[in-house]
Amino acid sequence: MRFLHTADWHLGRKLFGYDLLAEQQASFAQVVKIAQAEQVDAVVIAGDLYDRQNPSEEAVRLLNQMISDLNLTLKQPLLVINGNHDSAVRLGVGSQWFEQTGYYLRTTLNSVDHPIVIGDSQFFLLPYFELYQARQFFDDETIHTLAQAMTALVARMMAQFDASKKHILVAHFFAAGSTHSDSETSINVGGLDAVPLNLLTDFDYVALGHIHNKDALHEPRVRYSGSLNKFSLSEVNQTKGVLIVDTEPEIKVRFRPITPLHEVQQLTGAFADLSDANYLQKHGIDQAAYTGIVLTDTNVISNASNRLKQQFPRFLTMSRANGVQFSQQRTLATTKQQTPQDLLADFYQTVTGQPLTDQQVAWAAKALKETEQ
Amino acid sequence: MRFLHTADWHLGRKLFGYDLLAEQQASFAQVVKIAQAEQVDAVVIAGDLYDRQNPSEEAVRLLNQMISDLNLTLKQPLLVINGNHDSAVRLGVGSQWFEQTGYYLRTTLNSVDHPIVIGDSQFFLLPYFELYQARQFFDDETIHTLAQAMTALVARMMAQFDASKKHILVAHFFAAGSTHSDSETSINVGGLDAVPLNLLTDFDYVALGHIHNKDALHEPRVRYSGSLNKFSLSEVNQTKGVLIVDTEPEIKVRFRPITPLHEVQQLTGAFADLSDANYLQKHGIDQAAYTGIVLTDTNVISNASNRLKQQFPRFLTMSRANGVQFSQQRTLATTKQQTPQDLLADFYQTVTGQPLTDQQVAWAAKALKETEQ
Repeated sequence: MRFLHTADWHLGRKLFGYDLLAEQQASFAQVVKIAQAEQVDAVVIAGDLYDRQNPSEEAVRLLNQMISDLNLTLKQPLLVINGNHDSAVRLGVGSQWFEQTGYYLRTTLNSVDHPIVIGDSQFFLLPYFELYQARQFFDDETIHTLAQAMTALVARMMAQFDASKKHILVAHFFAAGSTHSDSETSINVGGLDAVPLNLLTDFDYVALGHIHNKDALHEPRVRYSGSLNKFSLSEVNQTKGVLIVDTEPEIKVRFRPITPLHEVQQLTGAFADLSDANYLQKHGIDQAAYTGIVLTDTNVISNASNRLKQQFPRFLTMSRANGVQFSQQRTLATTKQQTPQDLLADFYQTVTGQPLTDQQVAWAAKALKETEQ
Repeated sequence: MRFLHTADWHLGRKLFGYDLLAEQQASFAQVVKIAQAEQVDAVVIAGDLYDRQNPSEEAVRLLNQMISDLNLTLKQPLLVINGNHDSAVRLGVGSQWFEQTGYYLRTTLNSVDHPIVIGDSQFFLLPYFELYQARQFFDDETIHTLAQAMTALVARMMAQFDASKKHILVAHFFAAGSTHSDSETSINVGGLDAVPLNLLTDFDYVALGHIHNKDALHEPRVRYSGSLNKFSLSEVNQTKGVLIVDTEPEIKVRFRPITPLHEVQQLTGAFADLSDANYLQKHGIDQAAYTGIVLTDTNVISNASNRLKQQFPRFLTMSRANGVQFSQQRTLATTKQQTPQDLLADFYQTVTGQPLTDQQVAWAAKALKETEQ
């Protein structure tokens, strides 16, 4: 069989205050097209459908529409779990009704050993859980690490393995060895939060959510699909999309990219260039993208952000590659090792445009010496 | 056919800070028993399932369990609308799936003219709506009152009337002529909020939600079921329950009461009695009830609330029938008609325990006279 693996939709997320619902809707429309073109037998969504435990009405309305489009209009079987950003209770409302149309939404550990069989594959849906939930589920107070919990859960699942089928795990956690970015929320603290890869070797494929970078883990059969959209400037160089997984005759994974409605980009350059419409057009720079700007200039530029925003309506933030130099002196960014006397001289020159006179230097030295005593 | 009419569950509501979920669950269990004993063909819930637009996880979990018990376990058809306390979007999630099992949850005006037929009756489900939604629905900016909106909506529904069927309206509004209590939230302001009864005459029965008192309206076929629980001390004398409606051969309505897990009561009496366990037991007073107390005493009683709480673990609030008398003088509560001179004399006596001297009376009279001038 063939399925589409996606995760980390984070509906309701904002990027530097910009609402992303229209972006997310546009990415979803491409997921639908890919699912149809690939004629997949199921769509797997591995958690973090929402960005918040208590999402806005707009996010709730959008997700309900998306799921309804996929499952009711297109008759697409869905295999869905909650992630750490979702409220298991709120997301899980109605799940008892959904299975009638092949929408399998699992938000508790109770059915972790009730795999869903589609074609040649058993799908085990493991929702995101807290350790206390694993202790309750197993009635075992000795469970104190995610590795312990996962060992017990995997054993429970393996007891249901049908040897004639492929075994697919859908889960939402941090797999040991993955690289983090700044756009995922840390799931746990204290080093208990990583799932060792050796616990996952009995599965033919592990469809993971949590990490937004599809290349965060270098395991052929333990994969993050990544998010559908870029949620941080740290993700500008990532390609977003979904994974298409064939189970026959062998597991085969292909990446299908998604073109964002508007790109997220980071530009580095001189203010004179980046604030010049002609320059931008000549160099084919995407002015509609969500744009973070790093200026190479070191001089003070008045009203720089607002002037950049005129060229980039989705302007995000501005920073400096080389600090700001208030005069011809060394920049403030390089002053860390200076003496108080040097700092005072720099400050005076920056503010007045003139160096200290000899008399002023003497006065300053005297005052600083008194202060030190 | 026969149906059960209920409304105003208000899951998540608190009473003087007490969580009522266990009370609401106990009342619901009796609704289930009544529905089974009466072998009803449908259960109608006419809005305000939740108390808040954004209910707690506990309330969400409880409603999901209740609805699942009724519809999935007991195979009970359900006809449900949102009330003004519910978020139409949040409550409505999954409604497209629910109809497969006969759970008809309507939260928009779109299907107001798509009646649900059960037995000999057409059920028209009219969710609570704001006037702007009616203007959008009819694309008519001239709709400015609820009466205008209802006129148009009723016409839309009547166009679907099957003359061979009974016509039942399920709605959530304030019907003109009903008596308000302090536990409903006013739906609208400015006198636009009442639906005239003459708009409802073409229906054989109107199953209403909003008013918590089943006796708020004296119309045989336009009925509030009332809430399942008492949500205010103003409701202590109301009997809570559900309505059982038979449609054949004629509309016949019966009330079936519900026994609360713990009563809500208001007691009026002397502190010495109400704080005395022997007295309470001898007079068969329900100490487990949610209890508001009105003291007939007029003297100051130290730590009265805490001492009453020892007898009434669900103590709500305390007030005085006759005010508080700080000394042997008349009570403060009866001073409204006194002259400033009398008030001053009373105040002095209350604070010092002594009457004004003749000299003080003269000084006071002089000062008050100067003030008046």
